[in-house]
Amino acid sequence: MKKLSEMTSEELLAFKNETEKQYLDFKSLNLSLDMSRGKPAPAQLDLTMPMMNILDGDSLKAENGFDCRNYGVLDGIPEAKKMFADVLGVQPENIIVYGNSSLAIMYDVMSRAWTHGVLGNKPWSKYDKVKFLCPVPGYDRHFSICEYFGIEMINIPSNDEGPDMDMIEKLVSEDETVKGIWCVPQYSNPTGVSYSDAVVKRFASLKPKASDFRIFWDNAYCIHHLTDSPSCILNIFDECKKNGTENMVYEFMSTSKVSFPGSGVAVLAASKENVESIKKGLGIATIGYDKINQLRHVKFFKNAEGLKEHMKKHKEILAPKFDVVIDQLEKNIAPLGIAKWHKAEGGYFISFDAMSGCAKRIVSLCKEAGVVLTGAGATYPYGNDPEDSNIRIAPSYPSVEELSKAMELFCICIKLASAEKLLAAK
Amino acid sequence: MKKLSEMTSEELLAFKNETEKQYLDFKSLNLSLDMSRGKPAPAQLDLTMPMMNILDGDSLKAENGFDCRNYGVLDGIPEAKKMFADVLGVQPENIIVYGNSSLAIMYDVMSRAWTHGVLGNKPWSKYDKVKFLCPVPGYDRHFSICEYFGIEMINIPSNDEGPDMDMIEKLVSEDETVKGIWCVPQYSNPTGVSYSDAVVKRFASLKPKASDFRIFWDNAYCIHHLTDSPSCILNIFDECKKNGTENMVYEFMSTSKVSFPGSGVAVLAASKENVESIKKGLGIATIGYDKINQLRHVKFFKNAEGLKEHMKKHKEILAPKFDVVIDQLEKNIAPLGIAKWHKAEGGYFISFDAMSGCAKRIVSLCKEAGVVLTGAGATYPYGNDPEDSNIRIAPSYPSVEELSKAMELFCICIKLASAEKLLAAK
Repeated sequence: MKKLSEMTSEELLAFKNETEKQYLDFKSLNLSLDMSRGKPAPAQLDLTMPMMNILDGDSLKAENGFDCRNYGVLDGIPEAKKMFADVLGVQPENIIVYGNSSLAIMYDVMSRAWTHGVLGNKPWSKYDKVKFLCPVPGYDRHFSICEYFGIEMINIPSNDEGPDMDMIEKLVSEDETVKGIWCVPQYSNPTGVSYSDAVVKRFASLKPKASDFRIFWDNAYCIHHLTDSPSCILNIFDECKKNGTENMVYEFMSTSKVSFPGSGVAVLAASKENVESIKKGLGIATIGYDKINQLRHVKFFKNAEGLKEHMKKHKEILAPKFDVVIDQLEKNIAPLGIAKWHKAEGGYFISFDAMSGCAKRIVSLCKEAGVVLTGAGATYPYGNDPEDSNIRIAPSYPSVEELSKAMELFCICIKLASAEKLLAAK
Repeated sequence: MKKLSEMTSEELLAFKNETEKQYLDFKSLNLSLDMSRGKPAPAQLDLTMPMMNILDGDSLKAENGFDCRNYGVLDGIPEAKKMFADVLGVQPENIIVYGNSSLAIMYDVMSRAWTHGVLGNKPWSKYDKVKFLCPVPGYDRHFSICEYFGIEMINIPSNDEGPDMDMIEKLVSEDETVKGIWCVPQYSNPTGVSYSDAVVKRFASLKPKASDFRIFWDNAYCIHHLTDSPSCILNIFDECKKNGTENMVYEFMSTSKVSFPGSGVAVLAASKENVESIKKGLGIATIGYDKINQLRHVKFFKNAEGLKEHMKKHKEILAPKFDVVIDQLEKNIAPLGIAKWHKAEGGYFISFDAMSGCAKRIVSLCKEAGVVLTGAGATYPYGNDPEDSNIRIAPSYPSVEELSKAMELFCICIKLASAEKLLAAK
């Protein structure tokens, strides 16, 4: 196959016409598939169903004798704190076990920084301007929180080791209104990149001008591997200890894609000082989170090792789907030289970069033919991908067969949009 | 028995010495009882234990076919919305089913009013001063939320029909910075008073100067009756409709004291316009609440009628405890003319008013002898009961035997503190 950029106008036109025919054939299939979000497939949810009656007949007492059925315990039952501390490589005293959503924790932490400030510092709302650094492409829901509070977002380009640390170090050390950064350090959403050791070390040794600068370390995919020999990122808190910067990091994780999205357990890890301060605020808003569900999770997974073992079952279901995506791109798109992508070794997404100016067109073509992708631009602050190039592929929910069909369509749409673009430029 | 106020100094001294002896005897029993919070007793929690495995083998699909195990559905599954709408006498479209805590909803609503304003109005944080009206005595955790945001609280005296509506109408109509009021309209915390029809009607017809004035209608005890023929307060939304004031009310309830505190389901009821606006904000902070737990609750209680039937079982356990409190007060304290109390027909508390200046002393005497009561002053904003008179009695958690013992001690402490006070004044 010839690269599209090397085709003559005539060849391109023929290519486009041929692709258009394929597209119309697909449209007539009346597909209806949603690949817009990183939703686990039903088969993955089935893995956790035995959790449903695991507390039957039990006393519902925590290991310290506390009756999980009643009021009390703000920061989580001891065995849940221990399990998640072991996953994240911190101490139980560094853990708060919340409710069902790590996004809700992030919002809460941001909202309190906004209204009450961080560790005794001035509330962020009192600044004329507050800025956040946003490695791009990134997670749309992170960006929505910033936008909601009117926080100015600054795009930070990323490569295969993580975000551009030179730029981050410069901005953070020079500007007191830069108050935070969003990071998905392991299997980034959507790039799938895991931060290199050097990048983690540079994060831990940041010297921010703002004493209330915080790294929002959203370790959502810390145990969500897709290979048999996964490599994990460095423990950020271990690195921070070497630099005395433990207060600079809030780490988040949840079991949303381990047990059940919406019915899992979410966790914050932070320095003792941050934990104490956050607990004071939380105590105003609630008497405590769902301890019975915490107990349910500990009884089912037992410990950190159990959580990791369970994730291997998810991998068995997920990995073939990622393979379908990569295989089809390799086969149908690679020879044409019109796009790039990253083969993720974990997480929930494959990040796809079309030719500049083609992402919106591709997503819209797919949609018209019945396949809903994450909106083009969604992976950038304000929904604005300056290159109109990045598309987040979420292969988890459809079956392998459905996904295969959807990817065929996706490849056709890539070809069509790219041919249109090149022809227009001729 | 003679009234204490009618005793001579000598009689009082003898009374005090005799009571002191009884107190010391009690101290030697080394009691250890916590009556500080409205916690259900273990026997009440046992009532809901069959809920633990009620989803076993089920598909976990909501009635509309939605898989409750996965992401999605911000405002609650349809059957949960319906059940709670029926309890509160509104339509499902007026309901948002949240997570495990109505307090957390109240905090969230307040926090968003603070940062983003209410229905397009200016954020409350942009005012130099924001005021809330607080019927007293009231619920300490309501007051803590106001204090956290630096909202000035204005005490509103209450009587057996509810709060002083003349005062409320005046303050609300004159002062644009009065942005809200805390109400526990049915079986108030702690007075046990249910608002009269006239009071509810006057609330619904308030003409606030501030268009973003909101009534925080915390209907925590709407189905928590202690008699066989309970009388319910008027439906505030029905009354609001007559006045076109539906947007003025946020109503809250939860199953914390129906199923499990901390593992129940909490609900907001509001006008369609408020619901839509709140959902926009919520969508920034979370993808959704715990739908599996919502389903668990609906499968167990079935419907509003089922919820009400279940509460009768709670009543069987709770009512005898309230009787113990009232009986002992009637027997030991009434003849002495040194205190007042309200016999609640529902809810979780009995409000006790000692002689002025005695509440702290009574609570401290009880504590020294091993019975922890809610802190004196806790029922007032800033923990400041100007009369130092009100004590909230929470009889639910101890067994009848323990409670009986605790009330004996409580009565002794009342007598002792009152005698001390009267002697000091001689």
